[in-house]
Amino acid sequence: MAEFNTDLPSVRAIQQFLKDKQEVELKLVTDDLLVGRIFWQDNDCLCLVDQYDQKTLVWRQALVYLKPKA
Amino acid sequence: MAEFNTDLPSVRAIQQFLKDKQEVELKLVTDDLLVGRIFWQDNDCLCLVDQYDQKTLVWRQALVYLKPKA
Amino acid sequence: MAEFNTDLPSVRAIQQFLKDKQEVELKLVTDDLLVGRIFWQDNDCLCLVDQYDQKTLVWRQALVYLKPKA
Amino acid sequence: MAEFNTDLPSVRAIQQFLKDKQEVELKLVTDDLLVGRIFWQDNDCLCLVDQYDQKTLVWRQALVYLKPKA
Amino acid sequence: MAEFNTDLPSVRAIQQFLKDKQEVELKLVTDDLLVGRIFWQDNDCLCLVDQYDQKTLVWRQALVYLKPKA
Amino acid sequence: MAEFNTDLPSVRAIQQFLKDKQEVELKLVTDDLLVGRIFWQDNDCLCLVDQYDQKTLVWRQALVYLKPKA
Repeated sequence: MAEFNTDLPSVRAIQQFLKDKQEVELKLVTDDLLVGRIFWQDNDCLCLVDQYDQKTLVWRQALVYLKPKA
Repeated sequence: MAEFNTDLPSVRAIQQFLKDKQEVELKLVTDDLLVGRIFWQDNDCLCLVDQYDQKTLVWRQALVYLKPKA
Repeated sequence: MAEFNTDLPSVRAIQQFLKDKQEVELKLVTDDLLVGRIFWQDNDCLCLVDQYDQKTLVWRQALVYLKPKA
Repeated sequence: MAEFNTDLPSVRAIQQFLKDKQEVELKLVTDDLLVGRIFWQDNDCLCLVDQYDQKTLVWRQALVYLKPKA
Repeated sequence: MAEFNTDLPSVRAIQQFLKDKQEVELKLVTDDLLVGRIFWQDNDCLCLVDQYDQKTLVWRQALVYLKPKA
Repeated sequence: MAEFNTDLPSVRAIQQFLKDKQEVELKLVTDDLLVGRIFWQDNDCLCLVDQYDQKTLVWRQALVYLKPKA
């Protein structure tokens, strides 16, 4: 398996959103705002799943901020 | 051969799209949205092939998100 | 625990804002300007909390500048 | 000489364009689209030469995609 | 203390501006142009101080260019 | 002194422009186009000097392309 630092608070915070099936807003460098639940994360990507169950691979390098959907 | 971590879920997800000849949408940092099938991937790039069989090398650093074409 | 260089003046400056519950302005690569208090920081992210107590994970790669709110 | 991984498919694909004197389109993070032949590549840059034989050093970090000119 | 390569000409040039209390213009990736004196620098950031003595932490990753104010 | 790979063709190409006092155009990620002669380069920056002898430190991370001024 890939090395992945699960001790990082930010990684654990995302893992918690995943477990809680919390809907999140994800702001990207292109100014796109994606909405969905986190399906999994690895070193390179977050996988987001939207309400239609469509999955989107988002590269970490493109992440700006993440917050729970209001 | 080049070192390439095929254990990463994101790398395997892309490898699966490749095997399934799944058409994907690729959003880039320039806000371009490329459509095509993944022909190969390596450490630096994805190679995309469109419906006219034209190949495009896309640098990983420019990737924002990828999803199956609806 | 994750490796985190707490000797860096910039890390300590942020740690001081955290302790002082100082409201800060955070300029991001998308030109967004977030306002809030720093809740924690790690290698990858700052966690910002706003006046409604909502938390936002901000990736370090997206940071441009930070200053105390005037 | 500099370390340069010539086993990477993406590096070899570029090397093939070079040998074939294939005209290519190079999309950059600034949204510029440069057209020319690849003159050489190293770890940091591609060197492009246009129809007036003018050379341009393009930094790899600025690369988005490359494709043969239609 | 943090590792910081004080032998780099660029680091020393900035250190000289610091000692001379030289006002500088700092162009950032967001196209912002900050004006002030350099208060300190470390591996991650420059700290700029403006004419009202307000300090701004600027991340190195966001730096484009720096020149003495005309 | 700082480690600096003078064997890279791109580093040597820039060194040649420096020796020839060749005026160059430097395109940056902000879409700025700087014109001047290269005064020195190190691992982090290029130092450009314009016709009024003003020096500008340009960070390598902000470089897009460089070509001799026509």
